Amino acid sequence: MSRIAYVNGQYLPHRMAHVHIEDRGYQFADGVYEVVTVSSGKLIDEAGHLDRLWRSLGELKIAAPMKREPLKFVMREVIRRNSIFDGIIYMQVTRGVAPRDHPFPDNTAPALVMTAKRLSIPKAAKKAEEGVSVITLPDIRWARRDIKSVSLLPNILAKQEAKDKGAYEAFMVDDAGMVTEGSSTNAWIVDQDGKIITRETSNSILAGITRAALLRELEEKGLEVEIRNFSVDELQNAREVFLTSSTSYVLPVVKVDDHVIGNGHPGSISLNLRGIYQDFMTSGS
Amino acid sequence: MSRIAYVNGQYLPHRMAHVHIEDRGYQFADGVYEVVTVSSGKLIDEAGHLDRLWRSLGELKIAAPMKREPLKFVMREVIRRNSIFDGIIYMQVTRGVAPRDHPFPDNTAPALVMTAKRLSIPKAAKKAEEGVSVITLPDIRWARRDIKSVSLLPNILAKQEAKDKGAYEAFMVDDAGMVTEGSSTNAWIVDQDGKIITRETSNSILAGITRAALLRELEEKGLEVEIRNFSVDELQNAREVFLTSSTSYVLPVVKVDDHVIGNGHPGSISLNLRGIYQDFMTSGS
Repeated sequence: MSRIAYVNGQYLPHRMAHVHIEDRGYQFADGVYEVVTVSSGKLIDEAGHLDRLWRSLGELKIAAPMKREPLKFVMREVIRRNSIFDGIIYMQVTRGVAPRDHPFPDNTAPALVMTAKRLSIPKAAKKAEEGVSVITLPDIRWARRDIKSVSLLPNILAKQEAKDKGAYEAFMVDDAGMVTEGSSTNAWIVDQDGKIITRETSNSILAGITRAALLRELEEKGLEVEIRNFSVDELQNAREVFLTSSTSYVLPVVKVDDHVIGNGHPGSISLNLRGIYQDFMTSGS
Repeated sequence: MSRIAYVNGQYLPHRMAHVHIEDRGYQFADGVYEVVTVSSGKLIDEAGHLDRLWRSLGELKIAAPMKREPLKFVMREVIRRNSIFDGIIYMQVTRGVAPRDHPFPDNTAPALVMTAKRLSIPKAAKKAEEGVSVITLPDIRWARRDIKSVSLLPNILAKQEAKDKGAYEAFMVDDAGMVTEGSSTNAWIVDQDGKIITRETSNSILAGITRAALLRELEEKGLEVEIRNFSVDELQNAREVFLTSSTSYVLPVVKVDDHVIGNGHPGSISLNLRGIYQDFMTSGS
């Protein structure tokens, strides 16, 4: 758990970190967030996360709570004060505090909250070694999933349903029967010919930072990827399946609903890509 | 503005009313709410609002923060401490505070926040006398609009777009071209034959308490209502249009997008229904 949280200009003991009940994040989900991995003391893909944060803010016409350089300073200070070597930073920006009313308030300062916590690397490594299972669910979210907003109620319901069914993640499926993404991850398959496939970015999915980093690494290495929608049927009958996210990196999936993927163990391509991404984390980012 | 807010067991000065940054309402929009009108010191349709609150909680598997009778006591105490004669109570229940993680936390107490404020009756009466304008927008919300959740980001974007275009409300339109509801109201039309029409309740709209009260009153008076979906075309070419909500009561609409409704003044049926609803508020509820 975060020991020190940054809340609107103050570094506070976690238990004293509060926001007003009329912060629009609380009453309207009127805010956005980012989760950035800290690996060996280094912020992974910081620029990508900050670019996306600014984009999310822009789409919602929320002013940035501060300029980019001071924000980077606060991130480092939160890491330092929490003594994070391997872990994550969580940051949330909302439209700020105003008397409850649907339209955007005038002249309200946006709110910024930041926390950090350590993550267990051995635990994550074990999960990658064994692979995880996913379920598929109808995607019932709103139409602007490209915005990384805190309007996450459908996502938590999906994640909970996965948990109830003993799975790690839920991959969501649009009305056309095509996989969109996981509740907090991007979805990938490797087809029977060994081709790596992941959905194109649009308003239907979040443009994952880990997804983008992996695509860049694959392109550099001359590995082909097909960027296109894929169906539940393709997913269930894939040679390999994996997911990506800032905290999961590249994580092999060995079961989709009742379908065992491959031989039920992480596939060689998935593990290779996990290695490529971890190399990027160590050296490249 | 609320002077005294109820926050998890305490009555606090409004400026000191805070919740923890890891309240799941703030990080995940993992909560529900109700707005109850206070008219001449009386809570309007209290039972209906509490029934719906319990239903919303049940759908999200959030435990009730307290039993119904103590909650009713807190509502009265918030009214009393804020000296509300005509106004509203806002109450919000979230899944509570837990370290950030998508699935439901174990053994976390739900959070309850309640505020109250006065509303200007003359201002509302003037709006009803003149009628309001609405715009139509694609309904981009999630699929569970029957749950009165704080996951309201699409609603505030719709309301803001209405405001930007000089309108009071946005009526949202589904993929089939049928009107769902307003961003915080239910939508009704009166067709050229004088028939009153409003959409059926389903997961696509919120089951409005004012909508239900008006339907009950109309049934008692033997006035016919057609409960069915209606199109944007029917809306724009209606004889009359009005909206209902706990705070707007029955509010005539005189313009939809660029279409003037009727003669541009509130229609006689809408005004009659407003009167019927106000009689209900005075005597019946």
